[in-house]
Amino acid sequence: MDASQTGTGNSEELPSNWGRWGEDDQLGTLNLITAEARARGAAEARTGRTVSLALPIRPAPLISGPFAPSTQDASPVQQMMVYVGSPAPAMADVMLVTNHHPRSTHLDALGHAIRDGRVYPGRPADEAVTPAGARHGSTTAFAAGLATRGILLDLAAGGPLPSGHAVTGRDLEAAEERQSVRLESGDALVVRCGWPMTPDPERPMPGMSLDAVRWMHRRGVSLYAGDIGDAHPDLDPACPLPLHRVALPMMGLPLIDAAEVDELAAVCAELGRYAFLLTVAPPRIHGLTGVPVNPLALF
Amino acid sequence: MDASQTGTGNSEELPSNWGRWGEDDQLGTLNLITAEARARGAAEARTGRTVSLALPIRPAPLISGPFAPSTQDASPVQQMMVYVGSPAPAMADVMLVTNHHPRSTHLDALGHAIRDGRVYPGRPADEAVTPAGARHGSTTAFAAGLATRGILLDLAAGGPLPSGHAVTGRDLEAAEERQSVRLESGDALVVRCGWPMTPDPERPMPGMSLDAVRWMHRRGVSLYAGDIGDAHPDLDPACPLPLHRVALPMMGLPLIDAAEVDELAAVCAELGRYAFLLTVAPPRIHGLTGVPVNPLALF
Amino acid sequence: MDASQTGTGNSEELPSNWGRWGEDDQLGTLNLITAEARARGAAEARTGRTVSLALPIRPAPLISGPFAPSTQDASPVQQMMVYVGSPAPAMADVMLVTNHHPRSTHLDALGHAIRDGRVYPGRPADEAVTPAGARHGSTTAFAAGLATRGILLDLAAGGPLPSGHAVTGRDLEAAEERQSVRLESGDALVVRCGWPMTPDPERPMPGMSLDAVRWMHRRGVSLYAGDIGDAHPDLDPACPLPLHRVALPMMGLPLIDAAEVDELAAVCAELGRYAFLLTVAPPRIHGLTGVPVNPLALF
Amino acid sequence: MDASQTGTGNSEELPSNWGRWGEDDQLGTLNLITAEARARGAAEARTGRTVSLALPIRPAPLISGPFAPSTQDASPVQQMMVYVGSPAPAMADVMLVTNHHPRSTHLDALGHAIRDGRVYPGRPADEAVTPAGARHGSTTAFAAGLATRGILLDLAAGGPLPSGHAVTGRDLEAAEERQSVRLESGDALVVRCGWPMTPDPERPMPGMSLDAVRWMHRRGVSLYAGDIGDAHPDLDPACPLPLHRVALPMMGLPLIDAAEVDELAAVCAELGRYAFLLTVAPPRIHGLTGVPVNPLALF
Repeated sequence: MDASQTGTGNSEELPSNWGRWGEDDQLGTLNLITAEARARGAAEARTGRTVSLALPIRPAPLISGPFAPSTQDASPVQQMMVYVGSPAPAMADVMLVTNHHPRSTHLDALGHAIRDGRVYPGRPADEAVTPAGARHGSTTAFAAGLATRGILLDLAAGGPLPSGHAVTGRDLEAAEERQSVRLESGDALVVRCGWPMTPDPERPMPGMSLDAVRWMHRRGVSLYAGDIGDAHPDLDPACPLPLHRVALPMMGLPLIDAAEVDELAAVCAELGRYAFLLTVAPPRIHGLTGVPVNPLALF
Repeated sequence: MDASQTGTGNSEELPSNWGRWGEDDQLGTLNLITAEARARGAAEARTGRTVSLALPIRPAPLISGPFAPSTQDASPVQQMMVYVGSPAPAMADVMLVTNHHPRSTHLDALGHAIRDGRVYPGRPADEAVTPAGARHGSTTAFAAGLATRGILLDLAAGGPLPSGHAVTGRDLEAAEERQSVRLESGDALVVRCGWPMTPDPERPMPGMSLDAVRWMHRRGVSLYAGDIGDAHPDLDPACPLPLHRVALPMMGLPLIDAAEVDELAAVCAELGRYAFLLTVAPPRIHGLTGVPVNPLALF
Repeated sequence: MDASQTGTGNSEELPSNWGRWGEDDQLGTLNLITAEARARGAAEARTGRTVSLALPIRPAPLISGPFAPSTQDASPVQQMMVYVGSPAPAMADVMLVTNHHPRSTHLDALGHAIRDGRVYPGRPADEAVTPAGARHGSTTAFAAGLATRGILLDLAAGGPLPSGHAVTGRDLEAAEERQSVRLESGDALVVRCGWPMTPDPERPMPGMSLDAVRWMHRRGVSLYAGDIGDAHPDLDPACPLPLHRVALPMMGLPLIDAAEVDELAAVCAELGRYAFLLTVAPPRIHGLTGVPVNPLALF
Repeated sequence: MDASQTGTGNSEELPSNWGRWGEDDQLGTLNLITAEARARGAAEARTGRTVSLALPIRPAPLISGPFAPSTQDASPVQQMMVYVGSPAPAMADVMLVTNHHPRSTHLDALGHAIRDGRVYPGRPADEAVTPAGARHGSTTAFAAGLATRGILLDLAAGGPLPSGHAVTGRDLEAAEERQSVRLESGDALVVRCGWPMTPDPERPMPGMSLDAVRWMHRRGVSLYAGDIGDAHPDLDPACPLPLHRVALPMMGLPLIDAAEVDELAAVCAELGRYAFLLTVAPPRIHGLTGVPVNPLALF
């Protein structure tokens, strides 16, 4: 695949952290979460009130009849109850998880995104990820969990963003000004556009632009989460999927796809502050390309 | 099954919260996490330093050859890379999770434990949990995550507990005194015995006694985690599995099995304090009997 | 569980082969397939024309989006394409099979059916089948495949059987007379009722009666297949599920559930003969309680 | 991928059936199984004695502990017992099948093999097989089962073939002469080399040569099965994997990998004849790239 196939312009002109933290780096912009950034986050936790940034998932049965009812709904998680004896001394189950399901709040590991046959920070994709799992750029980097300050930029305080709007750096700065908050290097950025997750084929969702991704690069965003991501269809054919084709593979910026931020926005508005302690602690599983996560905002 | 089969003595004399928060309660001792308890926890988060209480999990391949290498190790998580096109535009995978695997740090939902055919707070087990999943006492109660103050009682500060030792309430109080800390109602209790997770058939592990469970009841423990749980084989044949047969089904005390607490103990000793903010945010999945979790201690 | 719970009357009065071929027998009525029975079958194979007695199965995707489309249909088989490299040197997949799915033509192993806590020929169910698989009465007995003479008794030559009709031994004999054929000991019995597999809640399907099961016992049926089985709801509350609660566990008569016999009936009518060589060769997998099978009638 | 990458010489000089039965053909050499070929097969079934050509498969548990024991062995089939109620009214299970496992006797569908980005008879691979399953060249073509005459050519009657031997057309003809049998167009070819399935890294197995594949093309082999296939490592670097890179994608010759033929050879020698009726009736599942099968030889 050459660059023209993957689109998003010429890689040389794009924001990049390849080499910034070494050839073997697996953390990407998590390197920006310094002790100072963590302390800035901890200072926001005062009452211990928590808000989840994850969409609730109702599992579908892994199998259908005769012993489990059928389901008509696809779900990111499929569950099966296990025979453990008769009569059963306990109830137990297994679950099959589709790690990159669009209706699951999940963390994209850096090795998820391939650009010109490579993953961050320039490793050949087929060495980094094999049929037996990911060796480089996997969830291992996130497995011990992390905490930093989170900043919500609510672009939908006055109502959902217009259909097809391409969010720019200027949009993000305007929200900072409106909310009297400033994202510092190492902070996690949480963005709200006010749209439901289920796409309406008639009304294209808004999405992030390459300009917004450049702004994140300049500002030192360590982690991105939002109810808004890359638009489908593309807003800018010359630069499709700026988060998944630039921010993730070039900048090493981990993405939390499909975050649920409505309750967060309501609590921020109620408390009159848009900064909080953000914890991200997925199941401590190594070697995945993505993993469901339940980010917590603590106030 | 009558009581003599399930052991652990006569249910009527055991510590119980059946009815305390209503017939339909699904939270159990999480009801004890009041705003005051949460604030007590938040006050412990000062630097934002985090310690994971989860064992790392290295997934095994879900399938073996010819395209994925075989594995000799069982693992709580089995992973498979998914075909997404050729050449692949991204790397993606699924995972099969054994929710109650003994080498996975996981949260037991209240419906996991059956006592005399019933689950907390007295619901018939076969109504609460069906072939299609759990309707009552499932992970739904934990899905939005929680935060409270955590207290580590390190019973192994002077070395691992003796083989076969049955931990009593007095043991726990002695640790409080040694560490100059006192567990309050609504706090999470984390206990360390200093043993590795892999059982040695020659040397029985220590375990919790019914006396310790009674102490947790009196003190108002909201959540239990530890590298020590119920002993195998039983330490007291008259009262086997006091955590899983009394605390979970009778008191509604959620258990975090197989926690990793060595790093936590080292950090507590280094900082000279045994209290911290504890967050528990499993993937936001409803209806499971258990779920992997990555509890974070924040200092 | 006492006998009144499992219904189907008093076990002592029921047709039974417990002990007939020993306490450890795993073949049940397959013992009746003698060299003579096999030769009788082989004599029917003249042109090599084959008819499948299996329902076609269209797999559903094991997982849904973003890389595999969702499905609205439950299926006995769920398929997933596997990543084998990029670009892919070959195409490969896995499948999850629900062995006892009602829309899958499958063989019930003898250990599938529990009667009064026991499986054929009287072994305790929890010893015969464990969380790790079946040790006794499993598909192992069928794994090398088998051939014998098959006899189709077409009860629907003049149109589908009436709703709710309980098929008796006399019904089967009448079909023999009509078709000028006689089932001998060791033959496989194939029955057609002419109803589609998908149940209509308004119109109860016909089903086999205990009288018909007694007839099979007297005649020495070695294997049963049909588009008709046990009725739901029960036709005779005093004796529910005569095939699954009497024939399978008491007589050790293997059942092929959900056979497709319309094409078979058409070919038999065309050729004017209702006997054929029947081969049953499921995947050679040991230790299952059931397995999909594609029985072939050869003419 | 160009031809030099896929090896096996220039496609234009290779034996090919592209276009022979049309652009949309899905049967390949199964087209050669005429009524005459089937009748020739049926004539061989005299006593009804059956021999399975499938390796026995002992499933491994799908999951490990605490409720199912761990396994140290990889297996083509992984089994899990399902909770169906407490006490259990029946025993049921699911299985996960790795369709192309090297220790499973399985049928390769025509779409399994990709040559220069195409599958038989020249369809683009990414149209034929998608993340949701195979649309062209799948197991659908075999789903109703088939019967034809089978011929065993036992190359190991005098002992296993030498290590690294490349079987030629002349080798196959010599066996015909030795056994006084002649393979006709539409017959299935079964070959025995006398080696165990488990490869010994020190002693390379024998394998089929391109010359043997050309012989199969000239003779009109409809289906191939054997305990010998493509050698690993390649015997002829200029022409690697002649069965999987020429016979399957160019000739449309279905392959049964990893057949078990020792018992078959013993029975043929005992009876003094090497022809039999061969039935191939995999589970009737559409849309797979491969499927476990239990071929039966009937005498």
